[in-house]
Formats: sequence, C-alpha cells, structure tokens
Amino acid sequence: MKKIDEAIWIAKSLFDRNKVSGSTANLSFIKDKKIYITKTGSCFGNLKENSFSIVEGNKVINNVKPSKEITLHKYMYDSDKNKKAVIHTHSTFSTFWSCVYDNENDFKIETPTPYLNMKVGKIGFVKYAKPGSKELFDMFKKESTKGYNAYILKNHGVIVGAPTLMEAFYMLEEIEEASYNAWLLNHFNNN
Amino acid sequence: MKKIDEAIWIAKSLFDRNKVSGSTANLSFIKDKKIYITKTGSCFGNLKENSFSIVEGNKVINNVKPSKEITLHKYMYDSDKNKKAVIHTHSTFSTFWSCVYDNENDFKIETPTPYLNMKVGKIGFVKYAKPGSKELFDMFKKESTKGYNAYILKNHGVIVGAPTLMEAFYMLEEIEEASYNAWLLNHFNNN
Amino acid sequence: MKKIDEAIWIAKSLFDRNKVSGSTANLSFIKDKKIYITKTGSCFGNLKENSFSIVEGNKVINNVKPSKEITLHKYMYDSDKNKKAVIHTHSTFSTFWSCVYDNENDFKIETPTPYLNMKVGKIGFVKYAKPGSKELFDMFKKESTKGYNAYILKNHGVIVGAPTLMEAFYMLEEIEEASYNAWLLNHFNNN
Amino acid sequence: MKKIDEAIWIAKSLFDRNKVSGSTANLSFIKDKKIYITKTGSCFGNLKENSFSIVEGNKVINNVKPSKEITLHKYMYDSDKNKKAVIHTHSTFSTFWSCVYDNENDFKIETPTPYLNMKVGKIGFVKYAKPGSKELFDMFKKESTKGYNAYILKNHGVIVGAPTLMEAFYMLEEIEEASYNAWLLNHFNNN
Repeated sequence: MKKIDEAIWIAKSLFDRNKVSGSTANLSFIKDKKIYITKTGSCFGNLKENSFSIVEGNKVINNVKPSKEITLHKYMYDSDKNKKAVIHTHSTFSTFWSCVYDNENDFKIETPTPYLNMKVGKIGFVKYAKPGSKELFDMFKKESTKGYNAYILKNHGVIVGAPTLMEAFYMLEEIEEASYNAWLLNHFNNN
Repeated sequence: MKKIDEAIWIAKSLFDRNKVSGSTANLSFIKDKKIYITKTGSCFGNLKENSFSIVEGNKVINNVKPSKEITLHKYMYDSDKNKKAVIHTHSTFSTFWSCVYDNENDFKIETPTPYLNMKVGKIGFVKYAKPGSKELFDMFKKESTKGYNAYILKNHGVIVGAPTLMEAFYMLEEIEEASYNAWLLNHFNNN
Repeated sequence: MKKIDEAIWIAKSLFDRNKVSGSTANLSFIKDKKIYITKTGSCFGNLKENSFSIVEGNKVINNVKPSKEITLHKYMYDSDKNKKAVIHTHSTFSTFWSCVYDNENDFKIETPTPYLNMKVGKIGFVKYAKPGSKELFDMFKKESTKGYNAYILKNHGVIVGAPTLMEAFYMLEEIEEASYNAWLLNHFNNN
Repeated sequence: MKKIDEAIWIAKSLFDRNKVSGSTANLSFIKDKKIYITKTGSCFGNLKENSFSIVEGNKVINNVKPSKEITLHKYMYDSDKNKKAVIHTHSTFSTFWSCVYDNENDFKIETPTPYLNMKVGKIGFVKYAKPGSKELFDMFKKESTKGYNAYILKNHGVIVGAPTLMEAFYMLEEIEEASYNAWLLNHFNNN
C-alpha cells in the first residue's frame, strides 16, 4: 500500500470510530525527504491525495496550505531521526486526562494493563499554550528533545511519532484505550 | 463536490458515528436563493437527492414536504446574511447539557479546552417550548437576532449556522466533543 | 425499496452503530399476509434475503427456521391490526433500564426531552421469565392487549411494533436515545 | 462463505465497532488440521488472506509469522476437541472487569440478564503474567483444562473458543455486552 493511501486509511478509521472529530486532527509522514501533511482545515473523514501539503525544508512545493500545527510535526521529526510519521488528535479520553493534570510530574494514565508501557513507553507532557501559538511550539520543542514516542498537550490532545504510520497509529490507539480503561477504573464504585 | 452530495455525506457521517439517530435531525443549505432542506420524517442515515425539499420564499417548488422545523432554519438565515447552511440535531451530549440548565445566564459547557470558543464562539440558549410549536419558533426568532453561530434549545438539542455546510458541520462536531469532555470532567472522581 | 431490503438495512444499521450485538436481535414484517422473520441464530450485521423465515399461519413455508422469539412478534401483530413490523433488541441503555425496575407501575425512562412521548407514547413492561419460555410468551400476550407501540422486557430488552419498518426503527432509536439521556442525567453530579 | 472470509469479516466488525483497537487482538481457526492464525502485529481493521499464518503441528508452513499469543490458542484447542475457532481481544468492558478482580473465586460479571449464562456458561480466570510470557502460557494451560468456553486474563483481556468462528464471535459479543451492562448497573445512582 502506498504511504499516502495508508495515511488516508488511518485517518478515516480514526474518524469513523469516533477517535477524531471535525477538522481537529492532523497527520504527516516523510517520503523522499519531504513532509506530507494534511492541509489546514481538512477532515479525517474524507481525505484524498490532494488533501496533503508537500513540504521540502521550509517550502510548500505543491501549493496546498499545511495544517498550522506543522511546527509540532517538524520538532517531532527533529527529535529523533527514526521517526517518519506523526499523528496529532484530540481523542476523547487522552484529552480528558490532559485536562486533569497540570505538569509532567503529576501526569499519569492509571491503567494496570501493561500495553501502554509495552507499546509506547514514557509519555511527555507539555503545559498549556494556545493551539498554533509560538509559545506552544517553543514549549513542545524543548520537551520533544526527550525523544519520547508520545506527548500529551495540556487541555488539548495527544501527539505520537514513530518510524511508520502504522506504528504511530497503534500507539495512538493504545493511548486512547488505556485512557478509557483508566477512566473506567477511576469511576469504579467498589462499595 | 456538489452541495447536495456534501449535505448527504455530512448527514450520513453524523448518523453512522452516533451523533444523530432515527429521524430527529434536519439540515439545510442555500443555493441560488433557494433553501434545500431535508424532508419531514427523513433519516440522516439514508438521504438521497430526492430527500430534499426545495423552498423559494414561502413556496415549496418540488412537491417534497420540508421538515416541520424549517422555521428555525429560516430565522437562522435571516439573522445573518453570511449564513448559508444550518444543521439541527439532538446529539447526545449537547442535548444532555440542554437538559441541565434553564436559561442563557446559567448555560455553559465547562471544558478547559479552547476549541469550542475558537471554532464556535458564544452559544445562545432558547427556553423550552414544544418542538415544532409557534411558541418555540417565536422564542428562537428573538434569540437568533444575536447572530450567534450556535444555539442550544432547552430539553431538545442544538442548531448551528455557518457560511458553508462543512463549517456548520465542524462547529456541530466541536460542540458535541466539548460537551462530552465537559461531562467526563464533571464526573471525574479526584479523591 | 423492497421491504426485505429495508429490513436488512435497518438491521445492519443497528448493528454497525452498536445498538445490537452478536445474534441477540430479531425483526419481522408482514407482506402478503405472511410474516418474514429473521432466522434463528442470525446476526443483524450480515443478513441476506435467505436469512428470513417466511411463516404463513403456523407454517414455515420456506424451510428456514424462525427466531425462537417469533411468538412475541405474533402477539404484537395480534394486539393491533395496524402493526406490520416488529423489532426486538437488547440495546444497551433500554436493557439497562429494564434491569433497574421491577414492574410497570415503577417503570420510567426519566428524560425531560419530549420525543419519547411524541414518537412512542406509553411503554409497557413485562416481568421476567426466561427468554423463549412459554411463561414469558404468556405474560407478553396479556400485556400486549394494551396495544402499546413498545414494551420493555425485564432484564432482557425492548420490543416495538409499528405500521412500517421505518416507523418501528425510529421508535426503537428514540427509546434508546431517551434511555441514554436518562442515564446521563441520573449520573449528573450537580454539586 | 469461506472460513477465512468469515474470520476477516468478524475481525473487521469487531474493529469497526470499537471492540478491538490497534494491533492488540488475534484470532484463529482450524481447517484441514492446520491452524490459521492472524500474523504478529496485524490489525483487525484491515486483514487480508495473506494476514494469516498457517501452522501445522509446530511448523509454520507459509512463511508468515504468527501472533506471539498462538500458544494460548493451542492450549484452547487442546482443552476441548470440539473447539475449532479462538478469538482473543482486549475489549474495553471485559478488560475493565479483568482489572477489578484478582482471582477466579472473586470474579464475576454482575448482570441480571440471562444471556451470558445461556450463551457462554462458566468463565475461567487467569492471574496476571506478562502478555506473551511462558508464565502466562503455563497458567493458562492449567486453567484451560476446565474446558470452559471463555477465560478472562487478569489486567489483559478475554479469550473465547467454540466449534465455529461465528459461535466464538457471538460469545465474545455477549461477554462484552454483559460487561457493559454490569458496569452501567454498578454505577446506577438509585438515591
């Protein structure tokens, strides 16, 4: 399967299963040293080949305006040369936990299942700044130097990076599933 | 994509992802100064081209009976000449919050995420009257003069208006997502 | 659309949107004085034309074994000559409320939204007996003489009857949506 | 329908309806004395014919690496010669209950609906060991000699076995639905 078809499949799958809604998510992958990233205002439910902006260095080479969050993607790629795919979403339960905690020292997804650790490992945490702002990009740049596979953005969502699109997708799925499990357990009424 | 195909795609997407059920939702758009609105008793899961009533002024011009809530749509268009698309649903979490509050002064969707404000802005609130009643239409007319992009109807649902169908869709998605986030946070058991 | 295609569409739609699971649901419709009912052990997710048993009086005329709950369907048709379609499911929130209450006097779906009443009206309640048992059929027969459009079966699920398949479907959708709304409101933490 | 097409349909259905996510599930069936099992790292959302490893005795005969949990499947087949299909998932509510209890004596899915017992019967419980570890396989081997149709794996998920793929699927669906019902009832606020 071509990378762009895989990206379209992943996006549609996340949308159709209610892990992404509206126009809030973005994803990218690297091919031939270029970044292919979903265009600004696009919807994961109906991406097509021409929904991707192609970026070489700092230049858009196909006249399609990239997501304004491309800077997060670039810092993710800069942080680890093995990363070739990035997905950013506001998935419900990951975002929920991002709203509960205030900094990396507190942050946790309290699940007793082992998969989050096995699939993703340590998760970084980035304090709140307005989405798309230089302040957020700067904080993310600093945090991303830790080279983790995933970061939670306070009151915002989650971003993952991996060597392949499918690996990034599997990580995102596990973060959301673990977040759901942790929410259910937090609410368990064992009286 | 033709506007009517976009409307059909949006409707089916909302239905398939459990944001609309049964025959409870309706949507419209303006094309060539005519209102195209889903017919009475139609289901967002299986709209076709002939599921739309075409209305010019006060006249149905294609012999298809419009949704009885067309009056809400008309007031929405009257309130702001830039609005060319309206969607009305009983989406679960938006409707939940419509049941909790009693008037505009109290009403809030308490999410710490910034997107609701960024995408939608202020949300109006219309007190309860029977769906389809003149009393509800009159209250909505009055409230709609505020020119907001979205209104919550007490014990009923949500209505959004925007320059394009996709913008209205994105707003609706964000209102429902923010409502879900607010519900999760309301229930968080931080003992 | 042919009635059987409409039945297949409704079944698949309920299954795909998680309102029916596994092989637990059944539906029927009347055509040319015969009952077409889903066969025993069938799955709403993949019905085909040959998934329906055709029953004339007490005789199966196409060699396909009907759902063992056909007796409930027959009593529903007997109770009201205008009913030509019946759907029975174990939908999650309808079933939840069926577990909470013990008899018709107590039973309620506490939603402040008006649609349940507008679309469905009074809902009957049938006490618990083993699914498929003569005891359950007898209790249902007695209750069904009230001629309601819908009945809740204690610790079991919901059954609706209507003049058309789509009307039965819309009722079922509204019962489940109202049940979900009532559950959310029951849990609202207005401290 | 060919067995492999049925397996692909079941997997996609579980994935599309959010009962499986990412690459966490696996399933197998027996055909001509060979085990067909999903390959390691595969995703239930996009299985194809070549996503299955074919295993005869201890030998992979088609050069496709099987899921590392194949040992659980083999012990399931060894425990009961009538079992010809096995499905293992981390479905949300089944996994939730696996996290709440610590051993077989405590374990229960507290639903008043009769279907779990009618469709599945007794459910075994296997204490926690790392997924894929010999320790887990050994504990499962011992527990599986009870010949139950389903086992809950502590902090991990559920595994079912049956004479056919569809029967295993129906069991899994009922376990998840009963688990959801039990969770809803546990949280009911009957003040």
